Amino acid sequence: MKIIIDAMGGDLAPREPVRGALMARNEHGCEVTLVGQEATIRRILEQDNIGTLPPGIEIVDASQVIEICDNPSTAWHDKPDSSMTVGLKMLKEGKGDAFISAGSTGALLAGGTLIVRRIPGVRRAAVAPVVPSGAGSTVLIDAGANSECTAEYMVQFAHMGSFYAERVLGRETPRVGLLNIGAEPSKGSELYKQVYHLLEEAKEAGHLNFVGNVEPTTFAKEDACDVIVADGFVGNILLKAMEGTASFIVKGLKDLFTTNAKTKLGYLMIKGNMGSFKKLLDSRETGGTALLGLRRPIFKAHGSSDAYAISHAVGKAVEFVSADITGAIAARMADLNAAAGGK
Amino acid sequence: MKIIIDAMGGDLAPREPVRGALMARNEHGCEVTLVGQEATIRRILEQDNIGTLPPGIEIVDASQVIEICDNPSTAWHDKPDSSMTVGLKMLKEGKGDAFISAGSTGALLAGGTLIVRRIPGVRRAAVAPVVPSGAGSTVLIDAGANSECTAEYMVQFAHMGSFYAERVLGRETPRVGLLNIGAEPSKGSELYKQVYHLLEEAKEAGHLNFVGNVEPTTFAKEDACDVIVADGFVGNILLKAMEGTASFIVKGLKDLFTTNAKTKLGYLMIKGNMGSFKKLLDSRETGGTALLGLRRPIFKAHGSSDAYAISHAVGKAVEFVSADITGAIAARMADLNAAAGGK
Repeated sequence: MKIIIDAMGGDLAPREPVRGALMARNEHGCEVTLVGQEATIRRILEQDNIGTLPPGIEIVDASQVIEICDNPSTAWHDKPDSSMTVGLKMLKEGKGDAFISAGSTGALLAGGTLIVRRIPGVRRAAVAPVVPSGAGSTVLIDAGANSECTAEYMVQFAHMGSFYAERVLGRETPRVGLLNIGAEPSKGSELYKQVYHLLEEAKEAGHLNFVGNVEPTTFAKEDACDVIVADGFVGNILLKAMEGTASFIVKGLKDLFTTNAKTKLGYLMIKGNMGSFKKLLDSRETGGTALLGLRRPIFKAHGSSDAYAISHAVGKAVEFVSADITGAIAARMADLNAAAGGK
Repeated sequence: MKIIIDAMGGDLAPREPVRGALMARNEHGCEVTLVGQEATIRRILEQDNIGTLPPGIEIVDASQVIEICDNPSTAWHDKPDSSMTVGLKMLKEGKGDAFISAGSTGALLAGGTLIVRRIPGVRRAAVAPVVPSGAGSTVLIDAGANSECTAEYMVQFAHMGSFYAERVLGRETPRVGLLNIGAEPSKGSELYKQVYHLLEEAKEAGHLNFVGNVEPTTFAKEDACDVIVADGFVGNILLKAMEGTASFIVKGLKDLFTTNAKTKLGYLMIKGNMGSFKKLLDSRETGGTALLGLRRPIFKAHGSSDAYAISHAVGKAVEFVSADITGAIAARMADLNAAAGGK
């Protein structure tokens, strides 16, 4: 298996993606292609005392870099020799099994949709991070790709998220919840009431294990669902609210631990056991976020990804490719479209 | 000043609202009217060894109770002798300065809107809790009253929230942010883009100190705004995501503290200083949530309110009445409507 990494994407690029590629090569045993400014990449390798490329790692030169100021919708086209555009074209042509970038989500989505294309029948690609929850972890879909959604898009998100939870998180007949502000079917906006109805139908047809509306409080506290469906606007608000609240509380904890000599000592006694607590809150542990609905696997790594986070994202991509989520979604879409056509 | 309390509303009613009323009488120096089943209320007072009512506290009998299974839209009407309906009618008739209930938010909103009525010109009443934020605290409006909003409603929320932040939180020219998934004006759904534009206009007219889009992460980490405007669906998702994430992390912390003898000892050393950290997360500290846009002050206390939380909500109501937020909103609405009419 070969994973293509955007060496120039993210706040800590190119150093951390380059280091992450080497780390991933060792940890996950896959081949890695680094796409970006070759001279810069080689300089970083030299600084790390790596004179010749280790086996299983190659560099593909791309002269341009997509910056934060570029228009995300057109960046892939405006900068045809950017690391992202070159990498996505390689993915499309089968020169790798998945593409990972820590660059602009918007640019990656636009480039992915227009270069790699959507799976036939899929209306919109969606961002699907695996987030901490009362169930341990849950697939949130869509977490920000589509600010304006129709009920049809959201039902497709449910199907795509369900395959992901089943094949990557190992949940049998994944429980699909609809993000909402109350448990009753009458809750929420008109769009959400309509989606509720359609998901009920999909459940009755035996296509989805829909468990009803799930509130953010229930989602966090209880073992409620394996997939949570939202439109991209609300899903992104949820994701960022979780992240914001977590860092708010961690700041409060730091203040608490450093109040005085006694609390500092108390902190030292706890510190050694903080591993799993920190892991709970570490965005690097969530690995890459899958873009579901495209013909080939694409992953977005967090903008602030370090080498560890990049390597972790590669691990997720390897799992994703092995489980053939893309193939499963394509087969389901073909079935649903055939059923709809046969009506 | 006299505050009317729904003795029968909330998970811990009637015991805790009754106790909360006594506590509030002592702490905030206001008179209190308890509305509910008189015999039950008197029995609770007797159990607490209070034979005669202390001065400044009265009981008004109401035979019915609005339950969780009642239809929130019509409960006030279906149960005309419920504590909520009787209390709201007393408020309307000037037999008290504010009404507080820990009962159903939906029933309180419907009853408040149809008995007490909206301020002339106000399109929709909104729920406006004060939530912890990077600014210390911020007014979130609307946090759940209106699942379906127009841009006009949301601009009115901005005005109402601004008065609240100015007069109750003491912020001069409060900074009003629009909840969104990115800072740029082009972010979010069509509705949010439209609201952005209208808030910009209100800023140029000198009516509001609009500071642009604010993401949930920014809102939590930075001193970004004193008021954050959202539609009721998204605002409620934000509120519940904050609450859910906080309890998720607190659970993780408890597991950490109780891992072994060493971490337990560490916890004991920190415990004494946990006050302000706990306060940060305690929903009881946020006190009652104001329903803004109605002709008389109405507060929703958390469903799980104990006596302390009820008393705290009374304190918030007293501040609210003293600051005459209702009068300020009515005056601004009259001005805006006159200006619109004069165009």
